[in-house]
Amino acid sequence: MLRVALSLFVEQGYHGASMRDIASRAGVSVSAAYHYFPSKADMLRTIMVRVTEDLIADLEAARDGAGADPATRLAAVARAHVLLHTRRQDESFVGNSELRSLSPVDRRKVVALRDRVGQVFKDIVAEGCRRGVFSQPYSAETVRAILTMCTAVAGWYRANGPDRPETVAERYAALALRLVGAMEFDSTFPRSGKVAARVAR
Amino acid sequence: MLRVALSLFVEQGYHGASMRDIASRAGVSVSAAYHYFPSKADMLRTIMVRVTEDLIADLEAARDGAGADPATRLAAVARAHVLLHTRRQDESFVGNSELRSLSPVDRRKVVALRDRVGQVFKDIVAEGCRRGVFSQPYSAETVRAILTMCTAVAGWYRANGPDRPETVAERYAALALRLVGAMEFDSTFPRSGKVAARVAR
Repeated sequence: MLRVALSLFVEQGYHGASMRDIASRAGVSVSAAYHYFPSKADMLRTIMVRVTEDLIADLEAARDGAGADPATRLAAVARAHVLLHTRRQDESFVGNSELRSLSPVDRRKVVALRDRVGQVFKDIVAEGCRRGVFSQPYSAETVRAILTMCTAVAGWYRANGPDRPETVAERYAALALRLVGAMEFDSTFPRSGKVAARVAR
Repeated sequence: MLRVALSLFVEQGYHGASMRDIASRAGVSVSAAYHYFPSKADMLRTIMVRVTEDLIADLEAARDGAGADPATRLAAVARAHVLLHTRRQDESFVGNSELRSLSPVDRRKVVALRDRVGQVFKDIVAEGCRRGVFSQPYSAETVRAILTMCTAVAGWYRANGPDRPETVAERYAALALRLVGAMEFDSTFPRSGKVAARVAR
C-alpha cells in the first residue's frame, strides 16, 4: 500500500493523488485503504519518517565502523548517504518535494530527523577542523554542500547506467573530502578507488 | 498570472492546483485565464523555460566576463548560478519537482536547455583539466556535484537570514574550485572573500 502511495506521489504529487487512486491501484477498496492508514497524510508521514530513520541508522553505523579519524569517518558517512540515495530514489524525491504537504506537527518531526542527519556530518567536520585535519573556514555551508550533492544523487542516478552504486559512493566520498580540504588524490585513485586522506597543515 | 500559477504550484503541486484555482487567486475569470494561456501545461512550460533561459544568459555573461583562466571562469559561473538560485527559489523548486508534469515534447525542450547549463560547466572543467590547472579524474561526476550543490541553495536560502546572496555565492565559488582541485584558501579568505586559485602541479 505504501509502495503504491509512493509511486503515485512521485507521478502526480501528493495533492494530485487521491486516496481513491491509491486504493484503486493497490487493488483494494477505499475503506480497506483507510483501514491500513487513517489518512493520506499518514502515509506521507510514514514514508518520510521511515526513510529518514533508515538514513540515520546507516550513517551512524558507517561512522561508528570507521574509527576515530575524521577523514575516514567523513568518507564513510558520505558513502553511506550516497548508497541509500541510489537505492531509495522515489522516497528521496517525495521527501524533497512534499515537505510542504506535511501537517505542521509532522513537518517538525521530519525536520528534526533531518537535523539529526545534518548533525552527524557537522560533528565530524567540526572534529576534523578542531584536529586541524580539515581546513574549512565556513563549515556550516560546507556541510550543506556535502549533504545536498550527496542527496541529489537520487535525482540522476540510473540503476541501468554505467556506474555501480559503490563506484558513485566512492567518488562522492572523495569529493566530500575535497570540500573540507582533506583530500589528495592518489595517482592510482581513478582505477583503484582508493581514497588517500591527507593531513592538512 | 504566471506569478500566481507559480505560487500555487509551489504550495500544492502542479496536479493539485487547477486552472480554476489560478484564475480565482489572480482575480480573473477562468475564461480570461485561458485567454492568456491556452492551458495549465503552457504555464508550467513557460515558467520552466524562462528561468532556465535566464540562467543560461547569466552563466554565459559571467563566463565571458571572466577572461580565459578556467579557475576564474568556474568561480564566475558558480557565483552566477548561486545568485540566480537565491533570487528565484520558487521557480527552482517547481523546476526540480515538476519536470514529471511536462508533456514529453516540453520535457525534451527543458532538458535540452538544462543540458546547455551543464555544458557551460563541463567545458570550463574540461579546459581546466586540459591545461592541468584542475586535477579531476572524473569530471562528469564533479560537474554534477557542483551543479547540484549550487542549485540546492534555492531550497535552503532565506533572504532574511544572516548571509547576503553575494556571500553565499562567493563561498560556493570557493567550494566549486575545491571540488576540481584548484582551490587554495588564502588565509584572509573568510574575511575578505578573496578567492586564490592555485595552479595544481
